Amino acid sequence: MTLQQKELFQKSPLLLENGETLSPVLVGYETYGTLSESRDNCILLEHALTGTAHAAKHFEDDAPGWWDDYIGPGKTIDTDKYFLVCTNVFGGCSGTTGPSSINPKTGESFRLQFPGFSIKDIIKVQRELLEQLGVTRIVSVIGGSMGGMQATEWAIDYADITDSIINIASPLAAGPDAIGYNLIMRMAILNDPDFNGGNYVGQPEGGLATARMVGMMTYRTSELFSKRFERFTVAESSPAAFSKEHFQIESYLQYQGDTFVERFDANSYLYLTKAIDLFDVTAPAKDDLPAFSKIKIPYLLIGITTDQLFRIHDLRRGYELLKEWDVPVTYHEVASEYGHDAFLVEKEVPKFEPLIRSFLSNLPVKSI
Amino acid sequence: MTLQQKELFQKSPLLLENGETLSPVLVGYETYGTLSESRDNCILLEHALTGTAHAAKHFEDDAPGWWDDYIGPGKTIDTDKYFLVCTNVFGGCSGTTGPSSINPKTGESFRLQFPGFSIKDIIKVQRELLEQLGVTRIVSVIGGSMGGMQATEWAIDYADITDSIINIASPLAAGPDAIGYNLIMRMAILNDPDFNGGNYVGQPEGGLATARMVGMMTYRTSELFSKRFERFTVAESSPAAFSKEHFQIESYLQYQGDTFVERFDANSYLYLTKAIDLFDVTAPAKDDLPAFSKIKIPYLLIGITTDQLFRIHDLRRGYELLKEWDVPVTYHEVASEYGHDAFLVEKEVPKFEPLIRSFLSNLPVKSI
Repeated sequence: MTLQQKELFQKSPLLLENGETLSPVLVGYETYGTLSESRDNCILLEHALTGTAHAAKHFEDDAPGWWDDYIGPGKTIDTDKYFLVCTNVFGGCSGTTGPSSINPKTGESFRLQFPGFSIKDIIKVQRELLEQLGVTRIVSVIGGSMGGMQATEWAIDYADITDSIINIASPLAAGPDAIGYNLIMRMAILNDPDFNGGNYVGQPEGGLATARMVGMMTYRTSELFSKRFERFTVAESSPAAFSKEHFQIESYLQYQGDTFVERFDANSYLYLTKAIDLFDVTAPAKDDLPAFSKIKIPYLLIGITTDQLFRIHDLRRGYELLKEWDVPVTYHEVASEYGHDAFLVEKEVPKFEPLIRSFLSNLPVKSI
Repeated sequence: MTLQQKELFQKSPLLLENGETLSPVLVGYETYGTLSESRDNCILLEHALTGTAHAAKHFEDDAPGWWDDYIGPGKTIDTDKYFLVCTNVFGGCSGTTGPSSINPKTGESFRLQFPGFSIKDIIKVQRELLEQLGVTRIVSVIGGSMGGMQATEWAIDYADITDSIINIASPLAAGPDAIGYNLIMRMAILNDPDFNGGNYVGQPEGGLATARMVGMMTYRTSELFSKRFERFTVAESSPAAFSKEHFQIESYLQYQGDTFVERFDANSYLYLTKAIDLFDVTAPAKDDLPAFSKIKIPYLLIGITTDQLFRIHDLRRGYELLKEWDVPVTYHEVASEYGHDAFLVEKEVPKFEPLIRSFLSNLPVKSI
């Protein structure tokens, strides 16, 4: 079975952080492995900004997932042992209620009428799903980039049922440059002639593609681009004034932009980038202490030294803060020419895999 | 006297690298100091992508220039000693013929009918101007960023009248990430609903502002943004869905974008970024040797270790190549939280000034 869906919050609506409510909420998710009889062998995997619930292949001919290298029998996330759940995020566009879903009140897509939501809201929906699935304890919540923000928020909000957290390449708060790039990406979409206040037909293609191209620049590194593309040109191209594909790097970026338009909803992109901007667990909670100071479960933080989006200086500052507040944090840094995306790249698995495996195997022994 | 203009190429047209011709060409320029009787005390200063000929104040109440800290009596570029010339680049929009100029053949603005041009063409126009001004020798051609590319090209094409070159923060060839960002910036402009194939009224504001915002992200550093803006919010703002100015970094970028639209022509931006992309003096010249290998005059190269646009690894590779081909190169690196823009920042003058002063003072003594 691949994508499954469950309708939640039918009776009592989802109460969002901003006070708005929504009912019902459809959640798209995929599972791997089997929930144990004691129902406490779950790992929750959180995808990044443009990811989906399809984290790995379910069978030989299945479409590749985004973390195939880490998931399967005997792998880091051993599906003979763990029951892995990966949901499409609330507000997304791949099976879970989001701006492109039908608003039951109007019979039309929400689009920009969709309520504003936060990372906190995203994981609230996930918790409801896990309860519906009968999960009683979670061995670990694992995620990278925006997935790492979700994992961190789990550590704060739902430590009651969670044993550990693994956060790869995400800071305790979005930094000003990530916010700046997110603004620029939204500007490209909002300014597209086909955007039409969110009521576009198809997609605001140029704007959404441009946004994706900006993203790609921050997900990788200059070193990688230099090595891979140098100043190679595309065959049969001409350096005519504004030919978009004279250089291979241009062709690469255009391709990334064009294929993205086919798989992602522009309105979802606006909402999700804003949720990233607003993520800040260093802000005081109700008790005036920083929210992250509540983390009392083992927390693995992995920073990527070459990250161009969530900079290593922010990760290091986060680590210092976590230590200062006695969070049981383990910190590692990984160097990679792939930059921010390194945790998604097959070639870099050997750099991350042992850190994750060792962390999981050193968790206090539970019933499994 | 501030901006002066001279009409060139009236009798024999400007022959561009791509074979096209243009006649006449108006050049906007400013000068500081006095041309000596022997007419050999000229320094040519090259501005960066969005700069102008107004490099420094001419009098107390004059508008600030972009290199006031370096130019004046007793300063690094000592106007008691040197005759400084700074032109607005060919293809620009501040006094020199460019896409927004009137095409004498049609009586209307060139816009996208303007011929494609290169860094080589930009300096060809400058050489013609200097000859018209009676300059016989140039002590140094100095420039940063796109200005550094012009300086480097001078070293190759016009060493016959040039004694030295100072290139700050520009590589021997635009790297793939600079090309990628340039493409993204052009995409934002081309996709603007008001762009109208280059025949816009006013400016394609959203697109041009977005382009400038992308540029600003690459001109500075994450460290600086973190220090200056953190996650500070704008007074009386609300984190409503896509409010453009919730965070100070957003307000800063918006301001940079909005003010840019008032002073720069979108079509010029397209042409100039393309000229940067195509700059590559590592490519073979007619004799099959790399063009830069022709450089036989003292060449000062200054790299900025934190540069997010023209990366230090590219500058270092350039230095190695220059040494390999016995170019008389002097290389220095400057670290600055300001990144690429450091050479334009008053606070950072002490890092650059001694390098430039020392280089100029150690040049083989000429008649001045």
